[in-house]
Amino acid sequence: MTNPTALSESSPKLKVRIHKPLNVEASFLNPHSPITAAEHFFVRNHFPIPEIDAASWRLEIGGAVNNPISLSLEDLKAMPATTHQCVLECAGNGRLFLPNVPEGVQWGLGAAGCAAWTGVPLRDVLARAGLKPDATELVFEGADHGIPEKQLKPKNEISYARSVPLEVTLKPEVLVAWQMNGEDLSPEHGSPVRLIVPGWYSVASVKWLTKITAITRPFLGYFQTVEYTYWAHRGGLQPERIPITEIFLKSQIAHPVLHQQIRAGEACRVYGAAWTAGVPLAGVEVSTDKGVTWHHAEFDSPAEDHAWRLWHWDWKPVDIGNHSLMSRASDIEGRTQPAQHNEDYESYLIDHTISIPVEVV
Amino acid sequence: MTNPTALSESSPKLKVRIHKPLNVEASFLNPHSPITAAEHFFVRNHFPIPEIDAASWRLEIGGAVNNPISLSLEDLKAMPATTHQCVLECAGNGRLFLPNVPEGVQWGLGAAGCAAWTGVPLRDVLARAGLKPDATELVFEGADHGIPEKQLKPKNEISYARSVPLEVTLKPEVLVAWQMNGEDLSPEHGSPVRLIVPGWYSVASVKWLTKITAITRPFLGYFQTVEYTYWAHRGGLQPERIPITEIFLKSQIAHPVLHQQIRAGEACRVYGAAWTAGVPLAGVEVSTDKGVTWHHAEFDSPAEDHAWRLWHWDWKPVDIGNHSLMSRASDIEGRTQPAQHNEDYESYLIDHTISIPVEVV
Repeated sequence: MTNPTALSESSPKLKVRIHKPLNVEASFLNPHSPITAAEHFFVRNHFPIPEIDAASWRLEIGGAVNNPISLSLEDLKAMPATTHQCVLECAGNGRLFLPNVPEGVQWGLGAAGCAAWTGVPLRDVLARAGLKPDATELVFEGADHGIPEKQLKPKNEISYARSVPLEVTLKPEVLVAWQMNGEDLSPEHGSPVRLIVPGWYSVASVKWLTKITAITRPFLGYFQTVEYTYWAHRGGLQPERIPITEIFLKSQIAHPVLHQQIRAGEACRVYGAAWTAGVPLAGVEVSTDKGVTWHHAEFDSPAEDHAWRLWHWDWKPVDIGNHSLMSRASDIEGRTQPAQHNEDYESYLIDHTISIPVEVV
Repeated sequence: MTNPTALSESSPKLKVRIHKPLNVEASFLNPHSPITAAEHFFVRNHFPIPEIDAASWRLEIGGAVNNPISLSLEDLKAMPATTHQCVLECAGNGRLFLPNVPEGVQWGLGAAGCAAWTGVPLRDVLARAGLKPDATELVFEGADHGIPEKQLKPKNEISYARSVPLEVTLKPEVLVAWQMNGEDLSPEHGSPVRLIVPGWYSVASVKWLTKITAITRPFLGYFQTVEYTYWAHRGGLQPERIPITEIFLKSQIAHPVLHQQIRAGEACRVYGAAWTAGVPLAGVEVSTDKGVTWHHAEFDSPAEDHAWRLWHWDWKPVDIGNHSLMSRASDIEGRTQPAQHNEDYESYLIDHTISIPVEVV
C-alpha cells in the first residue's frame, strides 16, 4: 500500500481529512491554469488503496455482452487514445459549510479538481465485448474492497462499485483512463486504470477499475442505495431515494480564503472556478453584501471539454470590519445557484452560494 | 382515531407490541380453522390509524393511465366482487427468535394471520383507467402518514406507500378489498378499503388505500429503500439492497407454546400452520431432537387459495426435562426451510426452523 504520509506531507496545499482509508483535500485552485496538478488533487477513498501490479492487471468485461473479454493494459494502450479535460467533484464537497455539519468526510471547498485525462473511450472498449440489446446499465468495480461504515451494510467485504446508465457510458468523453495531466496515474488516483465520467460527481469515476458488468435492470449496490443517495421528488410521488448522478452548477471562491485579512483601500482580486455538468456557463457574479447586490466576474479561461472555468472580480474594500464574499454561477439555460442548501440532499450536492467570511483591516 | 386499548384489551390472545402507532401481535392460530378472526389478527401500523369517512372516501388512479379516475366505495361495490383466502405475514414476523434480537417491532410468532378477503380484482379496477403500454409498476398509497423512524428519512411527512410490479398486480387474486371474513374492514385493518397481494409479505397489502399511480420505472420510496429491504445476491454481483417481495416457505408451531409444561407419558398434539407464496406445500415435519430426526405431520386443512394449511403431529414425550420442538415445511418443488437465518436478510424474512423450548414434567 502506498504510504499516505508521503502524499499528505508533500505539500502545504493538502489537508488529510482521514488517514485510513486515505482522504485528502486540496487547496483547491491553481490560479494560473484550470488544470489541477496530480499532487494537488483531492483524494477520496472508501477502502485502503489496493496494491496492483500493472503488468498482471486485467479489465474483465462480462454480463449482458456477446463476447466476455479480459483486457491487459497493453491491450488498452494499443487502442486509439484521446485526452479530455474534466472536473471531478466529490458529492460531499463543501459539507463543512452546511448548517449543523453532518457526518461524512469533512470536506471544505477542496474536494474538487480539474485534470486532463488520457485513455480509450469506453464505448470503443465495449464494442469489443458487444453489448446485448437488452443491456441498460453498466456496473463498474474497483480493486479496492472492505466493509463499509454505515449501519445498513452487507455482512461481508465488498468492492467499491457504481453503475451508470448505458446511454451515458456511450458518450465519447467517457474514458477508461491511465493518464492524468500527461503522466501515468498514481496509486492514490487509481493506477493503473480508472473510469472517467465527465459531468457526473466523481463517485462514478471508479478508480482501480477491474471489472465491468453489463446488466438489464437497475443496480442496487451499497454505494448507490445506502451511501451517495438523496431524496428526489419525481412525478408527484413521495420523495424517492435515488443515486447521485450529474454534478450541479457551481462556483467556488479560491481567493480570498476563509478568514483572510484584506487591506482596506487596496485592490483585492477575488477569483475562483465555476463548472457545470455540460450546459455551458453564462456567467459568474460576486456579492460582498450577503447577496443583496451582485457584480459580474470575468472568465479567465475558455469553455473547454468538461473543464471548470477560472474567473475573477476585482474588489476594493473600503469599510473596515467583517465581510462575507459569495459567488454565484449561471448557465445558458437560465439555471443559477440557489441561496440555500436543499435539505432533501442531506450532506451531498452542496451547490448553494457559500459565504466566505473575510476581515478588512 | 380508533382507541387502541379497545382492541388490545379485548382478548388475551393479543399482545400490544407498540401503542403509538398501534402494533398488535396475535396468539397466532385458531386450531379449528385456517381462518383467523379479525379481532385476533395481528396489526402492523407505521403511522397513526387515519380517520376516514367511508362516504367521502375516494380511490384515485393516475399516472401512466389513459383515463385517470376517482372511484367511490359505491363505485367499487357495484363491480363484480370475489373472495380469496390468503395469509398475510409481516416481513419481520419471528424477529424475537433471531440471535442478538435486532431493532424493529419485537414480533414473536404472531405477526401472521389468514383471512378470507372480499373485494374487486385490482385488474378490473385498472381496466377502467386503462394502463398505458409503458407502465411497469404501480405505487399504492395509504391515507396513513407521518415522519418515519429510521436515520435515512425524508424531511417531511410521507404517506405509507409501496409499489408492486405490474405483472403481479394483474393476477386475478390481487384484490381491492373491503371485507375480511365476511365483515367490513375495521379501522385497524384498513377500512374502508385495503389492497390484498396474496403471496407477498403484507408490506405490500397497503391499508387505507387512497391512491394508485402507474409508473414506468422502479419506485424508490422510503418503505422500499430504507425499510423493508435486504441484501440479495444477483448475477454474480456484490449484494444489492432490494425490496422485500414474495413470502418465503414457512411453518410455525402454535402448540405447545414457548416454555409450556407437558406431562411425560401423555399424548401431546403438536400443531401449527404452514404456508408458501404459491408453490403447493409437499409436507411438514416435526423434530424433538434439534433437527436430527424428523416426523411427518398430517395436514388438517386443504390447500385452498393462498390460505395456510393446518397440520398436526402427536408426540408422546417420555424423558423428563427440557426439550425443543421444531417444524419444517417443504414444497413440491423441493424447497425446505433452512436451519439457520440468513444474515443477508437482517431482521426480515425469518424463515428458518425455529426452536420452541418446552419442559416435560
